[in-house]
Amino acid sequence: MQDCSDNVETPDWLDAVRWTPEGLVPAIAQDAETGDILMMAWMNRQSLRLTAEEGHAVYWSRSRGKLWRKGETSGHEQVVREIRLDCDEDVILLKVEQKGGIACHTGRRSCFYRALKDGQWVRVDPVIKDPDAIYGSN
Amino acid sequence: MQDCSDNVETPDWLDAVRWTPEGLVPAIAQDAETGDILMMAWMNRQSLRLTAEEGHAVYWSRSRGKLWRKGETSGHEQVVREIRLDCDEDVILLKVEQKGGIACHTGRRSCFYRALKDGQWVRVDPVIKDPDAIYGSN
Repeated sequence: MQDCSDNVETPDWLDAVRWTPEGLVPAIAQDAETGDILMMAWMNRQSLRLTAEEGHAVYWSRSRGKLWRKGETSGHEQVVREIRLDCDEDVILLKVEQKGGIACHTGRRSCFYRALKDGQWVRVDPVIKDPDAIYGSN
Repeated sequence: MQDCSDNVETPDWLDAVRWTPEGLVPAIAQDAETGDILMMAWMNRQSLRLTAEEGHAVYWSRSRGKLWRKGETSGHEQVVREIRLDCDEDVILLKVEQKGGIACHTGRRSCFYRALKDGQWVRVDPVIKDPDAIYGSN
């Protein structure tokens, strides 16, 4: 099993988090102004520590197996206004200012752009910016 | 590994969800009116199907290994206004009407009642109702 934990000394508040066996915790990003839920991603100790220290959301990419500074490619950074922990200490909530107004790699404001209607997932939110224009097409 | 999946025939929209190897998906509950994030819990196929069919949030309790009809003990049911799916098809968002205005077993509105302040998790939201009065003290 992959060990995603941080090996450097970490502050006590990180020990209060109940990490998965893989050393991860789910983190929900919510727009601090509108209340919109933008995305959910995963963090390891290092990424949560860096998020608190730097004031910008840093996640752990499970697919790439590395730190993922949100917006490093797209410029769509998340400035962190508040970090919250749930009653079971196993979910993090970030209240953020979403740079560019786009959190999703599809060019939409939120990753939750599909709603269940009559037994079908229907895209209900518009693309704000073409992904090719965000990430480049080559 | 525990198999939490549903064995009965399921509609196509459930197949679009990317379930974990344990047959689960995280589900975020958001207050449909205020936008407050109330909680995050887990669902299996059966609980998500029942949530859609019945219009009330039904989760899968990982600790108890059984379906968990939110509010079955507390009365704090969640009436589901909308079900959304994220871009990676591995997170569900429920927009709900929270009965009693309390989602958390601690008697608070939201499970995310602690905020990180100066390196400490600080309780920033009040208890609305004593848990003993919700669940009984015996």
